[in-house]
Amino acid sequence: MNNPITELDPFIAQGRRDLEELVRLESVSAQGRMLPETADAVTRLLEAEGFTVRRYPGQVAPVLVAEAGEGPRTLLIYNHYDVQPEAPLELWESPPFELTEREGRLFGRGASDDKGEFVSRLAALRALRAENGGRLPLRVRWLIEGEEEVGSPSLADFVRDHAEELRADGCWWEFGAIDPAGRPVLYAGLKGIVCVELRCRVADSDLHSANGAVVDNPLYRLSKAIASLRDDAGRITIPGFYDDVRAPSQADLEAVARIPDESAAMREAYGIRGFLENASGAEYYRRSALEPVLNVNGLHGGYDGPGSKTVLPAWGFAKLDFRLVPDQSPGQVVALLRAHLKNIGLGDIEVLELETHEHPARSDLTHPFVRLAAQTARDVYGVEPVLHPSSGGSGPMHPFLEYVGLPVIAMGIGNHAGRAHAPNENIRVQDFERGVAFALEFFRRLARLED
Amino acid sequence: MNNPITELDPFIAQGRRDLEELVRLESVSAQGRMLPETADAVTRLLEAEGFTVRRYPGQVAPVLVAEAGEGPRTLLIYNHYDVQPEAPLELWESPPFELTEREGRLFGRGASDDKGEFVSRLAALRALRAENGGRLPLRVRWLIEGEEEVGSPSLADFVRDHAEELRADGCWWEFGAIDPAGRPVLYAGLKGIVCVELRCRVADSDLHSANGAVVDNPLYRLSKAIASLRDDAGRITIPGFYDDVRAPSQADLEAVARIPDESAAMREAYGIRGFLENASGAEYYRRSALEPVLNVNGLHGGYDGPGSKTVLPAWGFAKLDFRLVPDQSPGQVVALLRAHLKNIGLGDIEVLELETHEHPARSDLTHPFVRLAAQTARDVYGVEPVLHPSSGGSGPMHPFLEYVGLPVIAMGIGNHAGRAHAPNENIRVQDFERGVAFALEFFRRLARLED
Repeated sequence: MNNPITELDPFIAQGRRDLEELVRLESVSAQGRMLPETADAVTRLLEAEGFTVRRYPGQVAPVLVAEAGEGPRTLLIYNHYDVQPEAPLELWESPPFELTEREGRLFGRGASDDKGEFVSRLAALRALRAENGGRLPLRVRWLIEGEEEVGSPSLADFVRDHAEELRADGCWWEFGAIDPAGRPVLYAGLKGIVCVELRCRVADSDLHSANGAVVDNPLYRLSKAIASLRDDAGRITIPGFYDDVRAPSQADLEAVARIPDESAAMREAYGIRGFLENASGAEYYRRSALEPVLNVNGLHGGYDGPGSKTVLPAWGFAKLDFRLVPDQSPGQVVALLRAHLKNIGLGDIEVLELETHEHPARSDLTHPFVRLAAQTARDVYGVEPVLHPSSGGSGPMHPFLEYVGLPVIAMGIGNHAGRAHAPNENIRVQDFERGVAFALEFFRRLARLED
Repeated sequence: MNNPITELDPFIAQGRRDLEELVRLESVSAQGRMLPETADAVTRLLEAEGFTVRRYPGQVAPVLVAEAGEGPRTLLIYNHYDVQPEAPLELWESPPFELTEREGRLFGRGASDDKGEFVSRLAALRALRAENGGRLPLRVRWLIEGEEEVGSPSLADFVRDHAEELRADGCWWEFGAIDPAGRPVLYAGLKGIVCVELRCRVADSDLHSANGAVVDNPLYRLSKAIASLRDDAGRITIPGFYDDVRAPSQADLEAVARIPDESAAMREAYGIRGFLENASGAEYYRRSALEPVLNVNGLHGGYDGPGSKTVLPAWGFAKLDFRLVPDQSPGQVVALLRAHLKNIGLGDIEVLELETHEHPARSDLTHPFVRLAAQTARDVYGVEPVLHPSSGGSGPMHPFLEYVGLPVIAMGIGNHAGRAHAPNENIRVQDFERGVAFALEFFRRLARLED
């Protein structure tokens, strides 16, 4: 490494002040609070570092696109300035919108997700300029939105319409974390998602349960539908469901085999009775990263009190979410689901598509940009990083691959106890410091990356 | 008929006064209100007609056994003096505990279920004594309990232990009704019932739905369990479930074929989308009276709000009720259910037996006692009665068949809009009058019934 972390002290100190300022702004997108004000503050911080900032209207909050630097390489960075609601307030041990240090951690809404990520990268860019006499040896394009916590409703169209403006050699995604063993964790993809509700109604009003002799039961019909969608191993049994699934690459399979096996710790932490087919190790991570998933997140109908009520419920509903892998599409999955239900005589079950809807995205692990991120993490942290071909979770990564053609990698300053979206969201001071060092080194190496 | 109804006027008037007195007593067994006081009032009414009354402690309320009369024949009558709670009070159009006449109907809690039945039969016994010079030409044994609306917890053991005291030629059951077309409806049986709850837990706390890749889903497991219990025709698929089912007799099948087809009216009234296998007519009533039924009365787990929540629920539960036919037993059905779930790999689903638990009961339709009741109804009402081999509903009829060996028939004074258990419970004045006439004629004919 060219610089020990101590040389970064003034930049880290400035980054902390930036974070204090941003955390103070209550940019809760779900409630439409202080979004233009936060976009203003982000703009001022960027402009002070020589960025030109363009501001576009989004459905909920302004989209910012900033640009600075010159050089053979271009990096696109994606962050967001909005945060989750702070409720429940009573569980916070310090005010949610005041960055507060306790026991080596900085607490506050957005400290991790995603204001901390943003300021750590900005601090590294300041250091990069300082060591290059005030100029950036790398072109940086920065997309910062304010709608991520409400599903990024404007993002896909925006990226499609501004693909030229966002062209780069790779995209650095908004989040990242250090695992309990101190290893940096990198993700090269996110699953897609589509959420649906199944509704079944057999009558206009509830009936005495004796009528079950002649009237069908909506909870039986919903149960039959759900039981027909997967098998005991978790494999989805909707005809055609796997037709579009991209086979994992050799690099993907090698990557999941290298992930340290935390399944036993997970089982212990959540009191999980067991894993599907006793999966552990490579199989556990292959399923988590590379397989689509059907989850029933709600199923409701009829009586829910103590004891029994002999009623035949008029209706019931189930809520499902599908996690998708490349190259599945949410619309196609819903069409296959509807056709399947009709084919097995359950065409009376209504399928409603709910709002959550993301395409899957997974980058090529052999791409030089992805390899550079992993190698930099290895060198800066001094341990082997953990590289996941994809998170099991979902997010709006797909437009960057599909419309701009970029590899995308997530790596950052979060920690496994960072409580993103929850009360007492935090980052560790040391993760913030090392995150600035990682960013600086990543920028330096990227600036001189050969084809 | 020996007497036109007009000769019964004074007995009917006295019966109405008896009913007013009993309705005033708030004998709500679910709340333990005024049960001994109501037992006292019933005792006084019976003693005034020459009955000797024995009072036994029940778990919730006293059990009364009364006896009067002499002759070659003995009739056992079963009634109850407790009532359902009056709530919701605001839906009553007159005070629930004041018998109130409006538009040819008598409204009040217990007017139909079951104080009206009791006083109509008592009024007929007064008339019978009057025309026989003060004596009854029939031995009447009368069991009147105060726990029917809370599941008759004392009754089965009581009947077993007092079988000798309750010996008779037949039992007249507590309820009955006139259908919308004015036909008296008779039931010669009741289904059994057993209620269970299925519980499935996969973890100690809810998980992010991405974990569905490796952790099983409790709502899938419950759905698979439910889908495995029956088929689309409603036939129960638990191995061994039908082993104990008694084949319907020729008389049972002939009886269901004679029941007037009300299925289309039922469909219209409740907005029912369709009947299982388009059943109507004889098939509709065969299923309702003679087939066991599995009903899912509740199924719950996970998120139930608007939109979607990407959570893998830690647990869920389903509530089932089985309606049973002779000679099935609740305990055996639960054992078969447990064995089946274990056999199909769902042994982790806990099966809890809930409180409701009745054995099935069905009398022989060719028994002279049953035929006498039907013939008497035909003659008194001047129309063909509707004879059901069994109600689709359940109740504590089984001990009278099993321990005393009696045929049991239900026939009485309710009406299809009588709102038993609901606000504005009522009987029609004309049904009460004809009910007294029916009872008197039934007593007369039974007194002289030949073997």
